[in-house]
Amino acid sequence: MEPRISLLTLGVADYGRAKAFYEAMGWSASLDIEETAFFRANGCVLVLWARDKLAEDSGISDGGARWGGIALAHNVRSREDVHNVIEQARSNGAMITREPSETFYGGYAGVFLDVDGHPWEVAHNPGFAIDDDGNLVLPAG
Amino acid sequence: MEPRISLLTLGVADYGRAKAFYEAMGWSASLDIEETAFFRANGCVLVLWARDKLAEDSGISDGGARWGGIALAHNVRSREDVHNVIEQARSNGAMITREPSETFYGGYAGVFLDVDGHPWEVAHNPGFAIDDDGNLVLPAG
Repeated sequence: MEPRISLLTLGVADYGRAKAFYEAMGWSASLDIEETAFFRANGCVLVLWARDKLAEDSGISDGGARWGGIALAHNVRSREDVHNVIEQARSNGAMITREPSETFYGGYAGVFLDVDGHPWEVAHNPGFAIDDDGNLVLPAG
Repeated sequence: MEPRISLLTLGVADYGRAKAFYEAMGWSASLDIEETAFFRANGCVLVLWARDKLAEDSGISDGGARWGGIALAHNVRSREDVHNVIEQARSNGAMITREPSETFYGGYAGVFLDVDGHPWEVAHNPGFAIDDDGNLVLPAG
């Protein structure tokens, strides 16, 4: 696993309200598609997405006491790398809440919880390039 | 507020266990001080810190159902900017859980919760420079 946070997704209850808040705060979405807003930050990307979808996508039951509605993502350059990182996490005691599989956006991803339950999606997304610095390159909005 | 995530802090129950996990995953701490590990990522910095300290520092009661033990930080270049961003957040409906004040590390910071309760610390830390790209410059470990 390279030291990289590709996206940080905040689960939101009301998409319009959350997006309006961040826009009012001075952020500008680079991409807004299917009620998912991508804000280019420094290197990583802040994402707003429905909390229930994020929970489902992360393999997390939102009834649990300790999930705050945030997921980290670590994007990699190939499907093989998804498996490599997930297996590395498993062998280090992480719980795998989603085994590597096809995603709804045409990618391939798995999710592990670190030792404190913080969720990391490990994803290969053919629509998001990774530049030489390891940063995501968002497609034009 | 500029579009920037400076640090992402994961609250941990057992510092040694969490640090060992991330090291085993291939991350290497740039700085490890008072049971706080700073891992330089792409632009932003991943931090491991005791969950109870993070809760207290964020003005959050950890008995609540919906805090997952994660806090975002947005570092700024002056104390005035701390006030500016906190007031901007307040005027946009954010709850301020810590009014701007001196911090234990010699800085100055406030904390707001976004409209979904996600905590953002807005901090001026004289020990962490901000480069022209808006990225934190960690001091030598």
